[in-house]
Amino acid sequence: MSDKLRTLHVGLGPIGAGIARLVQRRDDMEIVGAVDVSPDKVGADLGQVIGLPHRLGIAVAGTIEAALPESGADIAVHATGSHLPQVYPQLAQLIEHGLNVISTCEELAYPAWQHPELARKLDRLAGEHGVTVLGTGVNPGFVMDRLPVILTGVCQEVRSLRVTRVVDSARRRLPLQQKTGAGLTVAEFEARVKAKTIQHVGLPESVALIAKALGWRLDEIRETIEPVIADRLLTSEFMRVEPGGVAGLHQVARGLVGGREVITLDLWMTLQAENPRDEVQIEGTPPIRMIIPGGIHGDRATVAAIVNAIPLVAAAPPGLKTVLDLPAAAGVGG
Amino acid sequence: MSDKLRTLHVGLGPIGAGIARLVQRRDDMEIVGAVDVSPDKVGADLGQVIGLPHRLGIAVAGTIEAALPESGADIAVHATGSHLPQVYPQLAQLIEHGLNVISTCEELAYPAWQHPELARKLDRLAGEHGVTVLGTGVNPGFVMDRLPVILTGVCQEVRSLRVTRVVDSARRRLPLQQKTGAGLTVAEFEARVKAKTIQHVGLPESVALIAKALGWRLDEIRETIEPVIADRLLTSEFMRVEPGGVAGLHQVARGLVGGREVITLDLWMTLQAENPRDEVQIEGTPPIRMIIPGGIHGDRATVAAIVNAIPLVAAAPPGLKTVLDLPAAAGVGG
Repeated sequence: MSDKLRTLHVGLGPIGAGIARLVQRRDDMEIVGAVDVSPDKVGADLGQVIGLPHRLGIAVAGTIEAALPESGADIAVHATGSHLPQVYPQLAQLIEHGLNVISTCEELAYPAWQHPELARKLDRLAGEHGVTVLGTGVNPGFVMDRLPVILTGVCQEVRSLRVTRVVDSARRRLPLQQKTGAGLTVAEFEARVKAKTIQHVGLPESVALIAKALGWRLDEIRETIEPVIADRLLTSEFMRVEPGGVAGLHQVARGLVGGREVITLDLWMTLQAENPRDEVQIEGTPPIRMIIPGGIHGDRATVAAIVNAIPLVAAAPPGLKTVLDLPAAAGVGG
Repeated sequence: MSDKLRTLHVGLGPIGAGIARLVQRRDDMEIVGAVDVSPDKVGADLGQVIGLPHRLGIAVAGTIEAALPESGADIAVHATGSHLPQVYPQLAQLIEHGLNVISTCEELAYPAWQHPELARKLDRLAGEHGVTVLGTGVNPGFVMDRLPVILTGVCQEVRSLRVTRVVDSARRRLPLQQKTGAGLTVAEFEARVKAKTIQHVGLPESVALIAKALGWRLDEIRETIEPVIADRLLTSEFMRVEPGGVAGLHQVARGLVGGREVITLDLWMTLQAENPRDEVQIEGTPPIRMIIPGGIHGDRATVAAIVNAIPLVAAAPPGLKTVLDLPAAAGVGG
C-alpha cells in the first residue's frame, strides 16, 4: 500500500517503544524512522530496541536532525517528556520540517493552561507549516477529561463533575512505583514533591480541558499532593514497604468557579490500592455515575490512545488541537 | 446576541417538546419557528404547546412550508419519526431550503445500513445545499454505539464488543411501556413484532456504526425480539401485568464477521427490570468493562444529546454525517 501513514518515532522509552511495536502491527501505518538520545540505542536496529524478535532495517538516530532528511515521514510520534518547556524545541523542529506531531507530553494535552505563550507559538507555527499538533494519552487525554466530557454530552445541564482514578501501582512498572513515591519515608516524599520529582503531570490540564468543554470560566485550579501511608506490609514485584512508609500518592486537582468547586479530579496511585477503578460522577440532569472496575490500564491504553489517534491527527486541519477538537479515535477490530 | 443559532423545531411530541424547552434555556440558541401536524397544536403558541408557563410569540405551523419562509433558521431540529423512508421527504425539504438538520430519526443514525440509496441521496442533497445532516440521540447515537466505540479508542486491539442496556420501563412514559409490549399477551406481542409495531428501532444501525468505526466488514446483522414474561405481579404508574403476561421486550442485534459474533447489543426494556444499567464489555488489549448503574435516562438524555450536538452540526462540513464524524458534544456547566 502506498497510502500508509509514515511515522517517525521520537523517544523510545517504555511508552515510545510500545507505540512503535503497535504501529508496526498496523497495516495502515509504516515506520520510516526513529530517534532516541540513549547511547545504547543510537545506531542499533529499531526492531531490537523495541523488543521485536526481528530487525526492521531502521537504525535509531541520535538526533531529530539525523533522522529527518531521509525519513519522508507524515507524522512524528513524540514520547520524550512530560513538561512542555522541556520538549518545545523538539516539537518546533518537527513542525518546521512539515511533520504532524502527536505526543505523550502531558502538558501538551492543554498547553494553554500553564504555558499560554508556548501554546500560541505552537499553534502559529503549526498553521504556518500546515500541520496538526496534539497531546494525548490515557491520563491526560482520556480517563479524567475526555471520557467525562463525553458523558456530559447526554446531560441537559451539569452542576459539577468528579472523576476518581485509583491505580494499584503494584501491578505496574517499577518507574511508576518510584514516580509515585512508593518506598520513601514521608520526609523524603515531601522533599521530592517540593522538587517536583514526585507528581502525576497533567491533572490541571485535565481540569482546564473539562472547564473549556463545559464553558466554565475557572477562577483557579488548586492542586494538592499527599503521601499515602502504608498501614500494613505492602509488596510489589519490585519492592516492600513497611507500615508507616510511603505506599504511593494521592493527588487532587480542583476547578473553582465563584468559589464553588465544579470539577474534582481525585487520583490515587498506590501499592495494593483497594478497589482500583475509574469512576465518573456527574451532578446534572440526568445525573450519571460511571464505573470501570479495575480501571483502564495506564501504559497499554496510552500506547493505544496515541496510535488510534494518528490517522485523526494526520487528517485534521492545521494548528494546535486538543482531544476535544477531533472526532472519536476508535480501536481496530481483529 | 446576534450570533445565536436559530432553530426550527419540526415535531413537538414528548421528545421534540423537551428539545424545544432545553433550547429555550440555552443562551447560545434562539427558537425561530415550530411545526407539528397535530390539530390541537397548529396555531397555538409554542410556549403553551411545550408546557412553558409563558408564551413565546411563535405560532406552531401545520406544515414545514408554512414555517419556512419567515423563520430565517440555521438548523432544523427534527423529531417526527423513527423510519427513514417515512421522514425522508421532510428531511429533503428542510435541506433544500438550506437548513442544517439534526434528527432523532433512529434509522438516520446510520442510514447507509438499511437505506443506502436514501443515504446517498441525502448526502448529495446536503452537499449541494452546503448543509450538514445528522441523526443522533441516546440510543442509537450514544449508549450502544458511540460510547463503546470511544472506549475502544484506548484499546490496542479489539476482539469483540458487547453492550447490555437494561431499562426499567416502569419508571418511563406510558408510550414507552406500550412500545415495549408491556400488558400484552404473548400472542399479541408476537403479532405486533411481526407487524413491526413492537420494536426498538436503531439496534442494527448501532451495530453497523460500531463495525464501521472498528473496521469490521460484517457478513450480516441478526436481530431477534422476544417477550419478557412476568413471573410475578408487575406494576407501573400506568398499568399492572399479571404473572404470565408480557412485561417488556428483549431485543438482541448481533454483528458477524466470518461466522464469528464480534458485536452483541443486548437490550432489555421491561417493567421493574432487575439491575437496570448500561454495561460495555470489550474483549481486547487492555480489556475494558464499564458500568453505568441505573443506566442513562432515555428521554432526558436524548433531548440533551440533540441539543448539545446542535452547535457541532452547524459548524461541520456539509454532507450526511454520523456521530463518529463529529467531535465530542459536551454538556453545559451551570
